[in-house]
Amino acid sequence: MCIVGIKVIQQGVGYLGKKAIELMLRKNIEVVAAIGHQSHIGEDIGKLAGLGEVGVKVTNDVQKVLENVKADVVSNCTGTTLLGVYEHIKPFIEAGINVVTMAEEFGYPWYRAPKLSKEIHTNAKANNVTVVGTGLNPGFSWDFIPIAYISACWRVDKIKARRVTDWSKTSPRRALLRFGKKPEEFRKGVVEGKIPLHTGFYECMHLLADSLNWKLDKIVVTWEMAVSKSFREAEFVTVQPGTTVGFKQVATGIVGGEARIVLELCPFVHPNLDEDGVESGETIWIEGEPSFTITTKWAPVEDGTPLCTVARLVNTLQSAIEAESGLLAVTDLPLTKTVRIREVVK
Amino acid sequence: MCIVGIKVIQQGVGYLGKKAIELMLRKNIEVVAAIGHQSHIGEDIGKLAGLGEVGVKVTNDVQKVLENVKADVVSNCTGTTLLGVYEHIKPFIEAGINVVTMAEEFGYPWYRAPKLSKEIHTNAKANNVTVVGTGLNPGFSWDFIPIAYISACWRVDKIKARRVTDWSKTSPRRALLRFGKKPEEFRKGVVEGKIPLHTGFYECMHLLADSLNWKLDKIVVTWEMAVSKSFREAEFVTVQPGTTVGFKQVATGIVGGEARIVLELCPFVHPNLDEDGVESGETIWIEGEPSFTITTKWAPVEDGTPLCTVARLVNTLQSAIEAESGLLAVTDLPLTKTVRIREVVK
Repeated sequence: MCIVGIKVIQQGVGYLGKKAIELMLRKNIEVVAAIGHQSHIGEDIGKLAGLGEVGVKVTNDVQKVLENVKADVVSNCTGTTLLGVYEHIKPFIEAGINVVTMAEEFGYPWYRAPKLSKEIHTNAKANNVTVVGTGLNPGFSWDFIPIAYISACWRVDKIKARRVTDWSKTSPRRALLRFGKKPEEFRKGVVEGKIPLHTGFYECMHLLADSLNWKLDKIVVTWEMAVSKSFREAEFVTVQPGTTVGFKQVATGIVGGEARIVLELCPFVHPNLDEDGVESGETIWIEGEPSFTITTKWAPVEDGTPLCTVARLVNTLQSAIEAESGLLAVTDLPLTKTVRIREVVK
Repeated sequence: MCIVGIKVIQQGVGYLGKKAIELMLRKNIEVVAAIGHQSHIGEDIGKLAGLGEVGVKVTNDVQKVLENVKADVVSNCTGTTLLGVYEHIKPFIEAGINVVTMAEEFGYPWYRAPKLSKEIHTNAKANNVTVVGTGLNPGFSWDFIPIAYISACWRVDKIKARRVTDWSKTSPRRALLRFGKKPEEFRKGVVEGKIPLHTGFYECMHLLADSLNWKLDKIVVTWEMAVSKSFREAEFVTVQPGTTVGFKQVATGIVGGEARIVLELCPFVHPNLDEDGVESGETIWIEGEPSFTITTKWAPVEDGTPLCTVARLVNTLQSAIEAESGLLAVTDLPLTKTVRIREVVK
């Protein structure tokens, strides 16, 4: 990705925010300010990211940042919800600074929150900035990538995607909450909202449906748990036989009673084809003219999912700066910008 | 893909041009004129595409078309070269009509023809139109798709892609030229330019390199033939043992002596893993952080490659209309346009 001479404000210095700073510094992107919460205030962002000191310190004073630095874009890692994150990014929008956020609900906010989406869009337009949500899911595996592929199709009848993630090394907090639980305990936890499952199905579903010009009658999201027959040991959790080793969430987009889009997420600890019926990786099945099957194997990488989410965020910054103003979807942005074109223009 | 109310001029009514007309009519895209050569003049484009009559007849009178119809975009299928196709599309550019072409050399013309690229760019800008080349290869498998994937990477070290195509049902003319030949006959044919191999490696290579901000020292393209051990029968050609059943072209993009981008094309008649070492399908290996492997299996489809090329062309029309003016690369265009956004804007 070509990122030259852009100035970024990092908003949010939690786990993902720190990773975003690390990636930007490694890519020689100028991080001119970082907004964080109490615990990190005054810390140097380079050190916070595990690199050398860079002379920029975390602050919680947005107003001061706006007065003292010039920036092209905000890299936002402060939450998930449209309303919550909009409150965080609003001062930047109104100061004329573009925003890229990894908040899931920004992936496709128009359906679930048309009124607020319109407000954000109007505000972004009025201030001549782009606001766009990106990430891995929504923002990549289940929308961006299949939409890239269907551009080679004459006709699409159905899209199915399955993403099986290995949680043996990832996110201790969530892993401990979800896995190694007695079935009744897991069920109760989910029902009571204490065990978080994946959100973001609706955003992917709507991005896909819109790209295909399909009007979905309904989206149904279900979950089921997987109970282990074997003992499995992971970095942050131990799974005894008879306890939860994974779960499966299925989102079905229905048109005229027919399941036209089916998205399956299967987080497992050491997923195992024989026992679990799934193995780590992603598959997309596109049925149409022609039909094709796309299988992606990721090399095992610690915290792969969050790292790729951060990459999507950072790699979208330049496109967001150059894009038309308004609240956009990631599919409205160009894949990248061809450097040579600019050289020709000069 | 969302294509609503656009008016298209089809330029070129050969095999691919006819397919483009067929796809546009099937998608209810309004084809307002078709420019063709002598043999099809006066024929109804619907009938030409194997569908019902639509009341638009093929003409070779570009001037008359420009005087009589209003169009948003030209769908160009008249050739491969930058210079040749530019001559064909120039009147449309100068009449203020956007152009999408499947000419391979438009995939990334800036490197091989910087002067002419600049001229086309300037002309397009002056007339406020977009000119863009698209297709499958260049335009999809080896540039668009891997560039989509690397947006989820922290770092990319190397990209390798292999595309193995089954020619058992495709393009009788080329199949007869290439396969079932004695080795010395094949070699002579290639050297003398009578047996056409694939062009388009340079365009893919440069699109990839630019997206990664890599400066390639050199691109080397080689070929080797594959001689069959077995008897293979295809729709348009019979391969005896000891004659050519396929070939392999390898393009290597070199940085500091290191092969950083390797693109392999392997057209075979009934490719067979045991004998040929390759099987039908596409694989992309991205080495970096993270590394991943993407395998695509296409359902067998008659003439799959040209059909997908046509789909890329038709599915790019709307983006080209909405894009900024100038000579663009396909990576400069958005993946698609999110319909909902427009509804919000209203």
